[in-house]
Order: sequence, then C-alpha cells, then structure tokens
Amino acid sequence: MTDVHFNKEKGSQLKLFTPGPVYVPERVLKEIAKPNDTHRSKAYSEMHQMAAEGLQKLLYTKNECLIFTSSATGIMEACVRNLVEEDEKGLFFSIGAFGDRWYEIGVSNGKTSIKEGVEWGKAITSEFSQEALSKDKYSVVFIQANETSTGVYNPIEELAPIIKDSGALLCVDATSSMAGVKLEVDKLGIDIALASVQKCFALPPGLAVCSVSTAAFEKAENVKNRGLYFDLITMKKSHVAKYQTPTTPPIPQIRGLTAQLDFILNEEGLEKRFERHERLAKQTRKWVHENDLEMFPEKNYESNTVSTIKNSLNLDIPKMVSMLLDKGYRIVNGYGQLANKTFRIGHMGEIQIKDIDKMLKVLADIIKELK
Amino acid sequence: MTDVHFNKEKGSQLKLFTPGPVYVPERVLKEIAKPNDTHRSKAYSEMHQMAAEGLQKLLYTKNECLIFTSSATGIMEACVRNLVEEDEKGLFFSIGAFGDRWYEIGVSNGKTSIKEGVEWGKAITSEFSQEALSKDKYSVVFIQANETSTGVYNPIEELAPIIKDSGALLCVDATSSMAGVKLEVDKLGIDIALASVQKCFALPPGLAVCSVSTAAFEKAENVKNRGLYFDLITMKKSHVAKYQTPTTPPIPQIRGLTAQLDFILNEEGLEKRFERHERLAKQTRKWVHENDLEMFPEKNYESNTVSTIKNSLNLDIPKMVSMLLDKGYRIVNGYGQLANKTFRIGHMGEIQIKDIDKMLKVLADIIKELK
Repeated sequence: MTDVHFNKEKGSQLKLFTPGPVYVPERVLKEIAKPNDTHRSKAYSEMHQMAAEGLQKLLYTKNECLIFTSSATGIMEACVRNLVEEDEKGLFFSIGAFGDRWYEIGVSNGKTSIKEGVEWGKAITSEFSQEALSKDKYSVVFIQANETSTGVYNPIEELAPIIKDSGALLCVDATSSMAGVKLEVDKLGIDIALASVQKCFALPPGLAVCSVSTAAFEKAENVKNRGLYFDLITMKKSHVAKYQTPTTPPIPQIRGLTAQLDFILNEEGLEKRFERHERLAKQTRKWVHENDLEMFPEKNYESNTVSTIKNSLNLDIPKMVSMLLDKGYRIVNGYGQLANKTFRIGHMGEIQIKDIDKMLKVLADIIKELK
Repeated sequence: MTDVHFNKEKGSQLKLFTPGPVYVPERVLKEIAKPNDTHRSKAYSEMHQMAAEGLQKLLYTKNECLIFTSSATGIMEACVRNLVEEDEKGLFFSIGAFGDRWYEIGVSNGKTSIKEGVEWGKAITSEFSQEALSKDKYSVVFIQANETSTGVYNPIEELAPIIKDSGALLCVDATSSMAGVKLEVDKLGIDIALASVQKCFALPPGLAVCSVSTAAFEKAENVKNRGLYFDLITMKKSHVAKYQTPTTPPIPQIRGLTAQLDFILNEEGLEKRFERHERLAKQTRKWVHENDLEMFPEKNYESNTVSTIKNSLNLDIPKMVSMLLDKGYRIVNGYGQLANKTFRIGHMGEIQIKDIDKMLKVLADIIKELK
C-alpha cells in the first residue's frame, strides 16, 4: 500500500489552480511533518499564541482569534449557534452556494432564518442591503466576503457600516479570501470573520480560524443551547488562560499556520501579498477576454482569488479539465448548478504570476483544440 | 521563525508515552507530508474508500464508517444531536472526565440528560447498569469503553447486551482504545463506536472516525435540529454516493489513516496488535508494583492503553514529569481533579515492549532520586 496516486507524474506535485484545497509548497509540507509534543505542553501553547497573534495582524484586529478543529462550515455553524437567540431572527445574505449553505445551517439549527439573495453572479449592493435590513429587526447578519461558487466578492467595505448601523452583529465568511484579500476587521466592525486554511493560507485542510469581537462573546454568554464542541465561551476560556483549545486540535496544521503567518507577515508582507492576488486575478481576466471567454460575475465584483468563467464557447468542461490534468495542472468545473455552464480557476495562496501565466498558456492551447 | 522547540534535543523526536496525542512514527509523518489533490478528486475518493473499508475490518462491522473533521468530542456531540429527540431521555454512564463531558454535551445541547456515575477508578458493572436502566425509559445510552482520565476499561462486552436489551441505541466512546483493544461492533450491537486518531492509531490529531448502524441512521432521519456540520444524514449521503465528505476534510490525516490501517491490518495484524497492547499494560503494571506504587483503577478493570497510577509515594509529579522530559520522554500528570494524586503513562499506538521497558527503567531511577 498505499498506492493512491495523488500525482499524475510520479514524484512531481500536481499543481492545483483550485478554489481550495490549493497547492501547498514543499516548505509548508515539511513543517506539517515535524513531530509534535501534546496539546497541553508549553511548546504547543507557544505555537498557539504565535498563530493567534499572527492572525490578529493579518486581520487588522485586537479581537481574539480562535482556532477550530473543523472546516469553515464548522465556524459558520458556531456563529449561528452562539449568536442567535430563540426569539431572534438571523438575516442571511446569499449570492451563491455558500450563502445558501449558511442559511441552511440557520434553519437546521432551529433558528428563525431569513434569506435575502440575488441572482448568482451578482453581488449584494448597498441599496439591496438597506432594503433587506429595513424589512425587519435582525440580531445577526451573515454574509460572504468572497463567494467561492460564483467568484463574486461582495463590497464588504460598503456593506459593513450599513449592517452595523442596523444594530446587528456581523459575521463574515472570508473562507476563500482571508490572507489573499485585505479585510480590516476592527475598522469595519466585523464581529466574527472566519476562514479555513486550505485556501489563501496555502495549507492542507483540517483547520479553521476566526476573530471574535467582545460584543460577540458577550452575546454568546446569553444564548442557550450552544452545545459544547462549538461553544465560543468554552473556547475563549482555554484560549485566554493558556493559549490552548478545549479539545485536541490539528497540531500539524497549526504548526503550518504559524510558519505561513510568519512567511506572510515577515517575508512577503501583507500589502505585497494582496497586490499579488490582485495581479493574478487581472492576468486571468485578461486571458479570459483574449480567449473569447467571459467572466461569470458582474463587472467590478470579480473575486481576486477565484475566477468563475462562463462557458461561452460551449466547451466540454470535464474533457478540458482532464486534458489539463494530463499536463500536471488542476482547475475545476463550476459549482453545483453552475457545472458545465462555468469553470473555475483558483489563483490564491502561493501561486505566482509566472505560474498562472504558464498554466493559462497550456489551457489556451487545449481550448483551441476543443473549440 | 518558527522556533518552537517541539523536541528537547534538536533533531531527535521526543518520545511520547502519553494518552494522546501520542508518538507518531517517521513513516507516518512522511505520509502526512505528501502533496494532495482536492477532496473532490477521484484520488481522494479512492483514499476515503480505503480508510472506510479498513475501519470496517478494524471494528468487525458492516456498518458504514464515517470520517469527521473534528476531535472525538465532535462525534460525541454528533451522537447527542442526531439520536436524542426532544421528548426523549439520554442516559450517560460516567466513570470519569470524559463521561462527565458527554453528559455536559447532552445538557448544553438542550437534551434531557441523565447521568449515572460511579466513583472515579471504578467501572460500570452489569448490576449497576441494570439498576440504572430500570429507573426510566432511555432512548440512547452513552458510555466510554476506555476512560482516558482514570485508566479504567468498562466491561463493554458484558454491558452492551444489557443496554441493547433495554431497547436503547448504544453509543460507545472508544477514543483511547480503538485500534489498540478489540471492539466487535456488530457482535455487540454498538450503534455508534467513535474515536479520534491521535491515540492508538498513532496519527497526529485532527480527525475522528466512527461506525454508524442502520438503526442509528434511521433514528437520525427523524430527529429535529440536527444542525448541518455534524448531521449524520448529510454525511452518509456524500459517503455512500461518492466516498466523500460534505465539507472539506483533513486530507493529510486521512492519508495517514489509510497508511496506518494498512499497516495495522496487513503488516502487524489485528490480533498481534491487541496482544501487544495487553503486554504493554501488563509490563507497566508489573513495574508499578515493583516500584512500590499502586494502580488507580480497581483490579481487573485496568486499561490496556493508559495506566493511571496512584501517587502513593507522594512524589512531586510535575518535577518527575520534567526530569523525565529532560531524558527525552513525556508522561503526564493526572487529569483534572486527579492531578498530583495520580500520574498517567500512555502505552498505545506504535509503542513497543522494548520502548516501554527502556522508559520505565529511566523513570524508576528518577523516582528513586525523588523519594
């Protein structure tokens, strides 16, 4: 055993241009593989603290940053369970599959959940949000920064003040943009900003992180039936007292996270990293137009981390993906209802301009062959 | 960065004799560090299937075996949320800290939860369970196989038929014994048997697994407010249709799991592995008596994977642990209320007889010095 071929060419790493899990550099994989002490050791606490403080810098926040043994969906569930009381209403803005999922989480946890959505490919505008908020009194608002299915980035800097003005707590799912697109948590008053690490952090999956405001912790104290596993109050206690987690955390991924945060903050630098993601996206959009394709998102709301591209040439997408895979690159089909109508190119994490240029050139040749 | 010293001596791995996370062999760490494809790829599904089928062999069951991105506590919460209806009662047998935790999970999820406990160090007996079950009608019974805090192994082979006779569903937390102590799920009629992988599987933490019976799935279908993240029905759908998970799983740990299951089933062999754990425990208990110490658990119920030892010599436990750490070995203090009154030696996973003999010799010298 274990003869699972994860790489087409033996010994060489498949280059993932995916919206997550993404390509993980060798230096991070090496970090992951180091032996560890237990999660109750001093060495662990030191590492946990480094990760938490690094996240605060990344998110421009003084809020506590917590570490979850779950995917981002787990923190989405934590937001719902910790912040919405029985007699309150949660408002879920949805612009795609992950907005719909958050709403489903609300419903499946027995919370009074209202969904306000727009056509896939569009963003939530200031006007739309104002109108939605005026309809009722909502105690918590849930919204994606980057919607991974449609490749739309909501104008979160415009929306946050409007939502906060309504008096609601604000939860932002930044799963596929955190560490790739700037998100100033304190300036925007975001109560919970969450993400998983297999996207712009360029780590293997198995860990999710979030910042939590004082107001969110205070609210959680008074919400019943929060459960234990995702209870923010229990987590805060271990975090603040000992830089630990109440249950056993994914130590390899946390070790990788401290290494990546150090790289992001002290080697590449935050501004340079955000610029690189912007350039990766621009380069991809330029390629899209040069190859007679169209972007799926409405103009000015295209994501900097994942490009969702309309299949305007009516290509055989599974065949195209498979042909590209033979060349050592993976891109992916559209998500759910967008399959075959769109395809997606992820350009996040440690992907460099020269990497995307190289892949796009190969993909252009395949498209010519398929047309 | 990232200068977190996880090993006392640079370059050499700290040898963990802990009740988890445990010592992980180099060959497993290498597996963990391999690059991966996405969780929606064929390669992933093949790996997931291998893991699931391996778990079925390990647990002597035809039940579906699911993969959770959580610690074992997450599956404990899943059991509560999926199986106990609003108008029903759950019975939590507790013999230590993790039994108490399961009961707390019941309470914090708003379920009617009854705890029946015994003094720490003792096991649940047939008589005790019969009396507890006769008091009321319980729809689900929750019990530890191995209680990691007290080092007691419940007589689960005697208790399972009694519990099943009452008509209740049976959930068994085998966190610190699965893959080290035989658990015949189908023969015993266990509806959910759960564990995390940083114990007897000798993997890094970040993944938990369980078997789920048809009856448990059928029950879950009718339970309200199951949430989404730990919803067994959603998980079953992805698992059965595609050998996938609904949310992104910890691919490195799953890769490690397939490698370890292959090793356990095809290299060491199940019976030999269970025997080795039995011998490790016997060797440790022999050492305990030779060194004028006493076991904490009542006789005949001592765990084969973790020995909880009474501090009958009134030793300075933190000092003893620290002195042993200087020699490259970690054991741990007693859990919670048992700190300093007991200490614990983990002997599970890939620990060999010669390893424990070597460590126990060093520890004996330290004890002589401290007495």
